Amino acid sequence: MAGWQIDDEGLAALEQRYRAQLINSLSGFKSANLIGTSGSDGITNLAMVSSVVHLGADPPLMGDITRPRSVERHSVDNIEAYGVFTISQVGAGFYQQAHQTSARYPRAVSEFSATGLTPEWWPGSTAPAVAESALAIWLRLEQLLPIAANDTQLVIGRIERLRLRGCSPQADGYLDIEAIGAVAVSGLGSYHATSRLARLPYAKP
Amino acid sequence: MAGWQIDDEGLAALEQRYRAQLINSLSGFKSANLIGTSGSDGITNLAMVSSVVHLGADPPLMGDITRPRSVERHSVDNIEAYGVFTISQVGAGFYQQAHQTSARYPRAVSEFSATGLTPEWWPGSTAPAVAESALAIWLRLEQLLPIAANDTQLVIGRIERLRLRGCSPQADGYLDIEAIGAVAVSGLGSYHATSRLARLPYAKP
Repeated sequence: MAGWQIDDEGLAALEQRYRAQLINSLSGFKSANLIGTSGSDGITNLAMVSSVVHLGADPPLMGDITRPRSVERHSVDNIEAYGVFTISQVGAGFYQQAHQTSARYPRAVSEFSATGLTPEWWPGSTAPAVAESALAIWLRLEQLLPIAANDTQLVIGRIERLRLRGCSPQADGYLDIEAIGAVAVSGLGSYHATSRLARLPYAKP
Repeated sequence: MAGWQIDDEGLAALEQRYRAQLINSLSGFKSANLIGTSGSDGITNLAMVSSVVHLGADPPLMGDITRPRSVERHSVDNIEAYGVFTISQVGAGFYQQAHQTSARYPRAVSEFSATGLTPEWWPGSTAPAVAESALAIWLRLEQLLPIAANDTQLVIGRIERLRLRGCSPQADGYLDIEAIGAVAVSGLGSYHATSRLARLPYAKP
């Protein structure tokens, strides 16, 4: 197969769902995570996301890109109102349940109940993590940073607690997320297991 | 192995490099991409990054998180000065060369020459992509959004051209990045091949 190319005018002319699939495929393999929150009425919310990004280690910050304001966003409303959320890494053992949280459930329905995943509580936070996950993180909202270009936001959270199950960091701090079965995502809804090619040392000229 | 946990005070007390390894491992599998730019003197720059993120499909936007302003950042300086950059996906055939671009070369040294990767030019842009990559994207800077919490920035780029080699989108727009050998990253410098578990359809309640 020789290849394929397209410019900005070509992209603008694409059918909407085709363009969404294509553009979502371009950023490479993405992390699979569940964002956990609670609402005013105690209803828990769980949302599959593929745009969690490392922001920095000192202070320990993680980010996530929201969807546009034009769609209902229960997680972001809860984060804005209560200032806390969780990130639970999606493992190969429950990725189908995790994917199912992306369905448009009404606000009154908890995705925990709907998908059979188990809330895990930490007394320091009103946000639930996912008990099935080997890697769960409780965060406090640092900032909701508006992205004017497409009316989304960068949710910036500061890590308050990290809980691992069935693993611990290696001697240098590296955590082998492959060994705990973390999955990668491509495009919209393609899930992948991994096999390590190599761990390369810090590069020097 | 039972598990492991740590809170914010514990994280703050960790040795710096250990903490960097640990926190970089928490966000899950990350995309492996090379950012290509040119400087005022025509010197090309190529930088390995693992924080490229999908921002939106309409308009087609991609983002990347910079390092703090306290370190030399040749790519960001070039992007700010000239308003264009490229994103080339890292494949299994050249990930070691891609990793080597993360070494601290002086500004006068092009990482293309230093690592043996080949610049690919498109007449519409002064930023070079990587010829060895199956998936190369030319972007125009939309915004450099400051992240006050740790003095980094979200680089927001709008796609002007996409070039694929050896592949084309599937009928629904999905691009099989596993088939073209794209690699995933975990932590700092761990590279992974993938094997698909499933492509799940759009979820419904």
